[in-house]
Amino acid sequence: MENLTLLIEKENERLLAPIRENMDQFFLSIMGMCILFMQCGFAFLEAGAVRSKNATNILIKNVMDVFIAGVCYWLFGYAFAFGDGNQFIGYKHFSSSLLDDSQYAFVFFQYTFAATAATIVSGAVAERCEFIAYFIYSIFITGFIYPVVTHWAWHSEGWLTQGETYLFEGENNTMVATTIAYQDFAGSGVVHVVGGVSALVGAVLLGPRIGRFHKETSTVGTIRGHSVPIAALGGFILFFGFLAFNGGSQGSISGEGDGAAVSIAVYNTIISGSFAAFTILFLNKIQIFGNSSWSLLLTINGALAGMVAVCAGCNVFYPWCACIVGVIAAISYSFWGWLVRKLRIDDPIEAVAVHFGGGTWGVIAVAFFDKNDGIVFTWDKQSAYSLAWQCCGVGAIIAWTGALSVLMFSVMKAFNILRVSEDIELKGLDIPKHQEPAYPIEAYGHGHIERILQ
Amino acid sequence: MENLTLLIEKENERLLAPIRENMDQFFLSIMGMCILFMQCGFAFLEAGAVRSKNATNILIKNVMDVFIAGVCYWLFGYAFAFGDGNQFIGYKHFSSSLLDDSQYAFVFFQYTFAATAATIVSGAVAERCEFIAYFIYSIFITGFIYPVVTHWAWHSEGWLTQGETYLFEGENNTMVATTIAYQDFAGSGVVHVVGGVSALVGAVLLGPRIGRFHKETSTVGTIRGHSVPIAALGGFILFFGFLAFNGGSQGSISGEGDGAAVSIAVYNTIISGSFAAFTILFLNKIQIFGNSSWSLLLTINGALAGMVAVCAGCNVFYPWCACIVGVIAAISYSFWGWLVRKLRIDDPIEAVAVHFGGGTWGVIAVAFFDKNDGIVFTWDKQSAYSLAWQCCGVGAIIAWTGALSVLMFSVMKAFNILRVSEDIELKGLDIPKHQEPAYPIEAYGHGHIERILQ
Amino acid sequence: MENLTLLIEKENERLLAPIRENMDQFFLSIMGMCILFMQCGFAFLEAGAVRSKNATNILIKNVMDVFIAGVCYWLFGYAFAFGDGNQFIGYKHFSSSLLDDSQYAFVFFQYTFAATAATIVSGAVAERCEFIAYFIYSIFITGFIYPVVTHWAWHSEGWLTQGETYLFEGENNTMVATTIAYQDFAGSGVVHVVGGVSALVGAVLLGPRIGRFHKETSTVGTIRGHSVPIAALGGFILFFGFLAFNGGSQGSISGEGDGAAVSIAVYNTIISGSFAAFTILFLNKIQIFGNSSWSLLLTINGALAGMVAVCAGCNVFYPWCACIVGVIAAISYSFWGWLVRKLRIDDPIEAVAVHFGGGTWGVIAVAFFDKNDGIVFTWDKQSAYSLAWQCCGVGAIIAWTGALSVLMFSVMKAFNILRVSEDIELKGLDIPKHQEPAYPIEAYGHGHIERILQ
Repeated sequence: MENLTLLIEKENERLLAPIRENMDQFFLSIMGMCILFMQCGFAFLEAGAVRSKNATNILIKNVMDVFIAGVCYWLFGYAFAFGDGNQFIGYKHFSSSLLDDSQYAFVFFQYTFAATAATIVSGAVAERCEFIAYFIYSIFITGFIYPVVTHWAWHSEGWLTQGETYLFEGENNTMVATTIAYQDFAGSGVVHVVGGVSALVGAVLLGPRIGRFHKETSTVGTIRGHSVPIAALGGFILFFGFLAFNGGSQGSISGEGDGAAVSIAVYNTIISGSFAAFTILFLNKIQIFGNSSWSLLLTINGALAGMVAVCAGCNVFYPWCACIVGVIAAISYSFWGWLVRKLRIDDPIEAVAVHFGGGTWGVIAVAFFDKNDGIVFTWDKQSAYSLAWQCCGVGAIIAWTGALSVLMFSVMKAFNILRVSEDIELKGLDIPKHQEPAYPIEAYGHGHIERILQ
Repeated sequence: MENLTLLIEKENERLLAPIRENMDQFFLSIMGMCILFMQCGFAFLEAGAVRSKNATNILIKNVMDVFIAGVCYWLFGYAFAFGDGNQFIGYKHFSSSLLDDSQYAFVFFQYTFAATAATIVSGAVAERCEFIAYFIYSIFITGFIYPVVTHWAWHSEGWLTQGETYLFEGENNTMVATTIAYQDFAGSGVVHVVGGVSALVGAVLLGPRIGRFHKETSTVGTIRGHSVPIAALGGFILFFGFLAFNGGSQGSISGEGDGAAVSIAVYNTIISGSFAAFTILFLNKIQIFGNSSWSLLLTINGALAGMVAVCAGCNVFYPWCACIVGVIAAISYSFWGWLVRKLRIDDPIEAVAVHFGGGTWGVIAVAFFDKNDGIVFTWDKQSAYSLAWQCCGVGAIIAWTGALSVLMFSVMKAFNILRVSEDIELKGLDIPKHQEPAYPIEAYGHGHIERILQ
Repeated sequence: MENLTLLIEKENERLLAPIRENMDQFFLSIMGMCILFMQCGFAFLEAGAVRSKNATNILIKNVMDVFIAGVCYWLFGYAFAFGDGNQFIGYKHFSSSLLDDSQYAFVFFQYTFAATAATIVSGAVAERCEFIAYFIYSIFITGFIYPVVTHWAWHSEGWLTQGETYLFEGENNTMVATTIAYQDFAGSGVVHVVGGVSALVGAVLLGPRIGRFHKETSTVGTIRGHSVPIAALGGFILFFGFLAFNGGSQGSISGEGDGAAVSIAVYNTIISGSFAAFTILFLNKIQIFGNSSWSLLLTINGALAGMVAVCAGCNVFYPWCACIVGVIAAISYSFWGWLVRKLRIDDPIEAVAVHFGGGTWGVIAVAFFDKNDGIVFTWDKQSAYSLAWQCCGVGAIIAWTGALSVLMFSVMKAFNILRVSEDIELKGLDIPKHQEPAYPIEAYGHGHIERILQ
């Protein structure tokens, strides 16, 4: 009888295997598609935040993100990230060689993450960065900087995935060997800190836009973007995409508990985003870090910061923890935004505050709020070690991305291909660089009105 | 042998159970995501329909819908709606306490519906409602009014779900006990009538915008929205979202027949929307209820009314029934639009005509066109009882929502926090309330043009 | 023992059958939804490419596509396409009669394709086509022209699906009978060539817009569209939709290997689009076919051409083949764009170059790059026959669509309902035809600014 049950189970598993595979590939494909749509979200969030004279420029940057990542991640990015290799980097499957057909869903899914990491930068360097410089940094980020970080943190042989085994006191004074490793479910650190650090370095080395900071006085000038509706469209698309970004990070849907993990991740994303949005809305209204108005653009950014922060642990947080993570993410966003302005760094869409600020906090938050062994639940040595590993991980990511970004942007600066000329910056990049004004004047108006005027 | 088959079947079901669960949670998550994206649709439909001076205001209202519902539905809305309790209201799972991990997909899915119910109102009160008033009504609708209605109609212990058992004549003069209950698959009544009634009450108590109705003459002034493309974007997104809204309402995809029910619901949504769009297009062109033009905005609203109306029975209609439902929905939309204007109620995006008009008709249509026991198919006493229950259900929803909305908006009116001052209304809400003009003038133009002009 | 295994397998399949069905219907529904969202993409790509005075007109055309196809494909399109009949046409299931519930997912999915075929035309005839003419051609394309082509190529009894059986030399000098048939996975020919040819005929018979070509000189005037951001939004949505279009074409997700096929199709779409985008960007920059700028609009069109071209074989290409297909698609797009202009045909959004150019190349590319029997892999007689069948298929599609389109547009021209009057063309169509200017002047500005000016 027992044998029979076993046989049935075995047979069953054999027959179910292809169904499981199909489910997973379907899941990865549709989630990846929604994540790729975030590119549209970033494009419009950024396009709304620049002046009309640079709208085409920022849009083509975001369109090209999709395709630069498409080329680079295929050619070598994936190999560095998920090819077998050593603890630091992979080197297999260049240009998808030797890939099994069943792996393409995973490649596609990971590609959409790479594209996200790169696109974060374009907002911070908007309105003054050379198109060719943009090309170069996008190739480096999607093809090398980001893939190496994913190898560390998401490939089974990566040093952050493997972590270290320690002896902790167990019950009855026994010692238990436990492995502590870096945890970053959907990439608060892997994606957003990478993007945010690179954005920061880019913004610093480019210098501020003309008119952003007044040299004599300490005033910070406001350069308004040209369209709130366009920015809001971007925000809405990003809210949508983030649910796929965090839910999809489970990576499979066929294993026991996968569905629950996905939906908890999705739900925590909404909870964290919601509380972050509220926090920033009221912080601003009551004039802490703000101008006493109900600001739409800050609310959007705050919600995004909340969603960025919850990435790392959205699968292991209780909703009430996600809510704390969101509140602190909004405060952290405000703080980083203030600091960046104070340091006279010009980050037009506050990419640093949202992605670096939110991401860093998110990585650390896991150590506190993980429902299995978070500090607030266990308050023991093991959770302190977890915290150390989270800090170590995010520190390593910052160091790696920072160093390479400094190198990359400095070399471009030295070769004078980083920033457009003052003349072009004043004129706007759309006509000189792209010959495509975003809103050509001659395309507006109705013939009969013009003829009446004549 | 028989025993063996039974054993295999039992073993199988045990192994399939987690797969089924995963499929359902995947289904609810992705459908919920698409439904949440409808918030973007509503935002842009409404933003296009207001003047540019109120565009930021309407956008932040719609952004906050997502997050207010996120907070309130989590804290208490879900508990009132789907917690165990009595026939009238639930009271379990406040702030998702005692929720099993496997239930989060359902919570998330239901949350997206709650957000939809609230967002319907913002269009009707646009361009004159205080931000704080908006906050308060959103909290009430997503946290209490709407959840209670869902408890009635969608929770197994709700009084509308349970209905009443009657004796009907069966074959051979026997009497058969049959339970008749309120039927509302995707919420024509539960979501759209709730939203529409609240929108109506809000619009009445706020009063019309300055310039909408001329006091002396009986003329109805037209206040055009500022951007047809923005409104059309909203329409397209809503068409997309409605497919998920109606298809997703099946709630599961792993049971026998689930897939078919989902796809029939989706297909009927298209059929009903299509015929409604055609009807309104031609009604308007041949100058019944219209201005003899091919109107895009009316066509979008007509299609939406058709999709709203088909919600309640899209799983039990034949396509040709969906087509009749759509045609009548368009006529009903035109009628309600006319009546609202006649009564000098100012509903800038005709939310009442679309959601209240379409929703009410939709609930009643089920009694006529349900392929199992609709009046047009059976013409018997039982179907008449069904009709009575549908009317009773929608009547109860109208009464409950109407009464609470009157209370809510009246209190706010009494405290003078309902409507902005005349001065701010004339200036537009974007600058005084949000300090964010939708299209800041200084952000437009190209430097070289300006310098040539100098 | 063997019997037992067999019994288990049989029992299993019986229990799994409904799960498989559900998975497939879920897959078709969600993919169909994303494909339908492409209508929004086309709408905005086209709206951005016309002058503001025709924006409402092009938007209503695209909204009505969804609903005209909804009506016509339901009434007769599906019957012609997938009803049983003969090799040429089907004639069953008019208005979904005799359809099993389980088939609606497929009907819905196919409907979204029909809507896509029709929508391609609207861009080419923009800014001068009568609304009623648009109605008529949309009904014909979605209801007859396109369905017949799908019957040929995608219904099991169609003559292009059945192909022909030939004897080829096998191993050891034996002769092997092999069936060669037309292959078009996601419709490079079936959808895009149909749309492209009809667009070409429409554009030719309508004649160019006033001001597009100067009669005396050989100059080609540029008529800029009114909004690059709106066009870019359309592009992004289309990139998203194309992944569903190509991935979804697998048609099922429950069979062994389905998931892999879907994800390969999706991934190849990105690869081909990426390389096409790069190609066109640099071709234009180095002034081959271009103006030496980094053009966003050309890049978007190029990427789309790459995605169109890869449709036919995205399930059987290696990524490196998809990359070649993309590069050639971009060149082909440039060539067709140049030729169309040279022939003084006015195609405002280059629908012919993208869809006809890309689609034709895509059909042919399958014969070269199919990993199973493409010319570059086998270099044998069989692959040459495949090439012949691909050419024959695309030739037949061109002939059929071309002939019917000429007939259709000529008759409309003869009855003088094809093109608007010169006066209306100059004024723009929005106000005379729709009474809905896209951006009503009176809806802009803030009260306080106007009052200060007074």
